[in-house]
Amino acid sequence: MNKKIVVIGGSAAGPKAAARARRMDEFAEITLLQKSPDLSMASCGYPYYIGGFFDDRNMLLSTPTGVVRDPKFYWNAKGIVAKVNTEATKINRDKKTVEFKDLQSGETGTIEYDKLIIASGARPKLPPIEGIDLDGITTLQSMQDADYLRKIRDEKKIKKAVVIGGGLIGIETTEALNLAGIEITVIELLPQLLAFLDYELAKLVENYVKTKANVITGNGVAKFIGENGKLTAVKLQNGTEIPCELAVVAIGVLPNTMLAKDAGLKIGEAGGIFVDEYMQTSDQDIYAVGDCTEIKNTITGHNVLAPYGDLANLEGRVAGENAILGNKVKFPGTIQTGICKVFDYHVGATGLSECWAAKAGKEVITVVNASPDKPGFMQGKLLVTKLVVEKETCKILGAQCVGPGDVSKQIAIWATAIKGNLKVEDMVNADLPYAPPFSLAIDHSIATAHIMQNKIRGLFKGISVREVKEKIDKKEDIFLLDTRGADEFEAMRLGAGETQIPVGMLRKRLNELPEDKNKEIITYCKISLRGYEAAVLLQAHGYKNVKLMEGGLSAWYYPREK
Amino acid sequence: MNKKIVVIGGSAAGPKAAARARRMDEFAEITLLQKSPDLSMASCGYPYYIGGFFDDRNMLLSTPTGVVRDPKFYWNAKGIVAKVNTEATKINRDKKTVEFKDLQSGETGTIEYDKLIIASGARPKLPPIEGIDLDGITTLQSMQDADYLRKIRDEKKIKKAVVIGGGLIGIETTEALNLAGIEITVIELLPQLLAFLDYELAKLVENYVKTKANVITGNGVAKFIGENGKLTAVKLQNGTEIPCELAVVAIGVLPNTMLAKDAGLKIGEAGGIFVDEYMQTSDQDIYAVGDCTEIKNTITGHNVLAPYGDLANLEGRVAGENAILGNKVKFPGTIQTGICKVFDYHVGATGLSECWAAKAGKEVITVVNASPDKPGFMQGKLLVTKLVVEKETCKILGAQCVGPGDVSKQIAIWATAIKGNLKVEDMVNADLPYAPPFSLAIDHSIATAHIMQNKIRGLFKGISVREVKEKIDKKEDIFLLDTRGADEFEAMRLGAGETQIPVGMLRKRLNELPEDKNKEIITYCKISLRGYEAAVLLQAHGYKNVKLMEGGLSAWYYPREK
Repeated sequence: MNKKIVVIGGSAAGPKAAARARRMDEFAEITLLQKSPDLSMASCGYPYYIGGFFDDRNMLLSTPTGVVRDPKFYWNAKGIVAKVNTEATKINRDKKTVEFKDLQSGETGTIEYDKLIIASGARPKLPPIEGIDLDGITTLQSMQDADYLRKIRDEKKIKKAVVIGGGLIGIETTEALNLAGIEITVIELLPQLLAFLDYELAKLVENYVKTKANVITGNGVAKFIGENGKLTAVKLQNGTEIPCELAVVAIGVLPNTMLAKDAGLKIGEAGGIFVDEYMQTSDQDIYAVGDCTEIKNTITGHNVLAPYGDLANLEGRVAGENAILGNKVKFPGTIQTGICKVFDYHVGATGLSECWAAKAGKEVITVVNASPDKPGFMQGKLLVTKLVVEKETCKILGAQCVGPGDVSKQIAIWATAIKGNLKVEDMVNADLPYAPPFSLAIDHSIATAHIMQNKIRGLFKGISVREVKEKIDKKEDIFLLDTRGADEFEAMRLGAGETQIPVGMLRKRLNELPEDKNKEIITYCKISLRGYEAAVLLQAHGYKNVKLMEGGLSAWYYPREK
Repeated sequence: MNKKIVVIGGSAAGPKAAARARRMDEFAEITLLQKSPDLSMASCGYPYYIGGFFDDRNMLLSTPTGVVRDPKFYWNAKGIVAKVNTEATKINRDKKTVEFKDLQSGETGTIEYDKLIIASGARPKLPPIEGIDLDGITTLQSMQDADYLRKIRDEKKIKKAVVIGGGLIGIETTEALNLAGIEITVIELLPQLLAFLDYELAKLVENYVKTKANVITGNGVAKFIGENGKLTAVKLQNGTEIPCELAVVAIGVLPNTMLAKDAGLKIGEAGGIFVDEYMQTSDQDIYAVGDCTEIKNTITGHNVLAPYGDLANLEGRVAGENAILGNKVKFPGTIQTGICKVFDYHVGATGLSECWAAKAGKEVITVVNASPDKPGFMQGKLLVTKLVVEKETCKILGAQCVGPGDVSKQIAIWATAIKGNLKVEDMVNADLPYAPPFSLAIDHSIATAHIMQNKIRGLFKGISVREVKEKIDKKEDIFLLDTRGADEFEAMRLGAGETQIPVGMLRKRLNELPEDKNKEIITYCKISLRGYEAAVLLQAHGYKNVKLMEGGLSAWYYPREK
C-alpha cells in the first residue's frame, strides 16, 4: 500500500518537505494543507515587492521559469495534492488523522497519515496595548500584509509611518516604505537596533539608518491613537506622540505550536515544537520543520527559535526524506547566520556575538576591523567586522560585519569557518580568491584574523570606542593620539583634546609624547592600521600603557567635532 | 647590536616582509633592494588601469589614504631604507652580504645581513620565436608595461591587437584592451582557455569571451611579422596570419631563481626556490617569499609555483616575523585559489579540478550545478559550479565556478570548506547568510552540495554535456528528453532529435517514452532541476537507464539549433 504523507503548512518548509518526500517515493500519497490562499511564497521577498524592486506579484509565487506554484502546479509537476484555504484543526495521534476545515466553504474533513510533517510556521507578536485594532496597523508576515503595504505604495496617499521593532524585518520594512516616499520613524524598545549585533556595531547601523529615517531606541509604544477607527498617531512610553497614518508592527514572531501542543507533542525549552536531529517530534510518526520548531544552536548546545527561510528549506528537505525512508539524514542545527540590506548598507552576523557568548558563559577575545572590501582604485567600500573567538582555544565563535561593502561574502566565509571548527591561526593564512575587482590582496576576513592574532599574542592592547568615550567623558588622564595626516585631521576629527602626529613623523616627534612612560596613550587613525603601527612603535620606545582604539574613527559612532 | 635585515625585491612579498619585520623589531636595520623605480606596486591592478577603470597612476602605488609608497614613505612611516633602481647582483652566503648595483649611476655596493629575505619575483615567459623583439610586442608584468599599454589606450591609434595566452592575465588584458576600443584576438596553445578550469567550464567562459573578442584555441604563434621593426601581424602554427599592431604575451611566468641558484640555495621540484613551512630556504639565514618560491599544495602534498598576489603578502608576513623572532610562524601552503573578471563574467576556482585530481591520482566524483545566485525578482544571475569530491571520503577537493553571478562568494565558501576539511554532508546543511538581495533561500553552494549528495547516494546518474554531444555525434540510440515547457523549447533548443515533454505532463505522457525500459534516456532542462525530477520519476516508473545531463542547457557549450 502506498505511504500516506500529510504536510501541514505550505509556505517554505512544508512544500520543501513534500517535494523531497515525492522524490524519495514516486507512489506515496502526499497531501499539503495550507491555511493561506497562496503556496510556497517567497516571504523574505515581501519587502522588495513593497519597495518596488519589482512589480509582478507573481514573482513571489513562481518557479524560476515563471510558473505559479498553485495547486495545479503541485499536482502536475510534483504529484502533490495541495489544499489551499484549508486549516488543519486537529491532530488525532491515536487514529493518525488530521482534521481540517475549508476556510471558504466551511466544510470539514479528515485525512489519514502514515507520517505527518508539521510546518505550521510562526505568527507575528502583537503588543497587547490600546488601539492595536485600529485601521492602519499591520504586520508584514503574510502575502496579504504584503499586498496591503504594496497598495499603500502604489496609492501614494500615506505620508508618515512608524515601524515598531528594529529587527531584520523592521529594518527591511523601513527601506521598503522609504522607497515608497513615506517618512518613517523606527521605534525599538531595546537600546539598539538588530539585537543579534553587539552594541557598537548596531550603533554604526543606526547612524546609517538615521540618514534615511527617524530612529528612536530605548522606547516602546504605549498606545495607538486613532480617529474614526483610523490610526493617527502612536504614543510612546515616554509620552511622546508621533503622528502617523500607518504602523507596521515587527517585534518578532512566535512559533505556531497550538496544534502540536493540543496533540500532546513535546514543546521545547525555547517554546518551539521539540524535534530531534532527524526533525522528528516526540511522536515517531510526526516530524516538524520550519518556524514552528526550535533547533539546536551548535555552538552553545542550547535550543533556539531560528525562524529563517533558508533553514526552513533545509529542515524540510531532511524531514521529507526521513518521513519516507525512516530516519536516514540529520539536521545538525544552526549557528544563527543572518543578513539584511538596508539601502546601500549591509548587515550580517554568524555564530555568537560577544553578548551572546557572555550569556553562554564563554570567555572570549574580540577585535574590530574597519577596512575596505576592495582596493580604492576599484571603488572599495568599507566593512566593519567584529570577530569573536574563544579565549582558551582561539576557535572562531562568531563574526558580525556591517557596512556598504560586500558583507555577504565575509559572513559566508566566517559561517563556513565555524562549520569547519577553524581557529584564528587557520584563517591567518587562508587561501581565498583574490583579484582587485573582488577583494584586497589580503582579504578583509584574513586581515581581521591578523589583527586577532596580533591581539592574542599581545602585540597590542585594544580598547573599544565605547571605553574611549567613557574615559573622555570622565575626563580621565589619557593621551589621545590621532596618527593621521594633517589634511585628514582638518577634514574630520574627534575634537576631544587629541594630539595629531602622522605615523610617518612619530619617530622624530617622540618628544611630543608624555614624559611619563606609564601614562595611558590611546592611538587611532581612520581604520586603526596606522594606529596599530604607532602603538607598536611607542611600545618599542618604552611606553608601557599604550592602547589601540579598535576600528579607529570608522568605528566611532558618537558625535565628533568634525 | 641591532639586527640587520636585507630584503631583495620591493613589489609585494618583499615590502610586506620588511614591514612585518619592522613591527616585530623597532630597532632592526631593515633595507629593501628594489630593481624597479617603483615600490609596492598593486600589479594585479594593472589591467584595470589600462582598461580605464581609474586614471590616476598613483593609485597603484599609494596607501589607502593616497600617500605614494616611495623611499621617503618607507623611511618615515616604517623606518625602512628602500633603495630603488637597485639590483641585487650576488649573495655571499659565507660573508652574509649582498652585492648590489645602482642601475642609474652604475655604482655598486655591498650590504651585510643577519637575515636575508629573497623576494625576487617572477619574469614573464617569452616564446623563443622569430620577431619577438619587434616594436609592439610587450608583456604585462611591470609598471612600465602598464604605462606602455595605458599610453596605447590614451593615444587611441592602435586598432588590432593579439593577446597570446588565455590564462588569467591574458583574459584580464583582453578586457582592458577591448575597453580601449581595440579589436582583440586571443591565442591559446592549449585546447582551452584558463587551464585551471576543467574543459567544460573553460568552454563556457570561451563562449562568453567570444562575444567580446576573437578566440583561437589549440594554436600557437609561429612567428611575429613586422615592417621597419614594427609588428604588423602574427603568424600562427597553422599558417594563419593575423594582422595586428600590438601583441601582449601572457603565457605565464618563471620564478627568478638565478641569484638564489648562484648562491647555492636549493631549488625545488617545481623550479622555484625551495622553502620549508617557515619560508626558510636551505640556508637558515635566508628566507624566500612570493613568486620566486615554490610552496606546497596542501591537497596533493606536491610543491607548486603559485604566483598569486595574496599568497605573496601572506608569505611575506610569515618570513618577516620569522627573520626577527626565529621560526615562530608557519605558512601552510596553498590550495591554488584564483579568480578573475572578464567584463560582466566571473571565473574562479579553488582546490583541485577534475583534471588536476586525476593527475594527483585521486578518484573523485563531480557534479555540475547551473543555477542563479539570487531570486529572479532580485535580478539573480547564473552561476555554473563544478564540484569535485574525493570518492572514498566525500571530502571536498575543489570547486570551479563561472558566470555573471557572484562567483567570489562561492569560491570563498568552498576555499574555506576545503580549509576546514569539510565533507559534502557538512555543506548540505550549511548555515549561510540568506536574504533575497544576497542569495537564494538555498544558496547556490548548498544546492551544489545537495546535487552531489543525491549523486553519491545514487538517486540519479549524471552525464556531462560533452558525453551527450559525443553520443549525439556518434548517432547512438538514445532518447533525449527535454523537460521544459513548449515556450522555452520554442525559444531555445538543442535540435538533436530530442522529445519535449514538460515535467508537469510527464506522469500523464509516460506512453510517449520508449517501450524498452532498458533504453538510455537522457533528461535535461534549462539548469537540470526539472531534468532531475524527471529522471527520478522515470526511474520510479521502471526505466533502468536514465541519465541526467548535468547543468542542463546552461552548461551546453556547443552550438544549438536555436
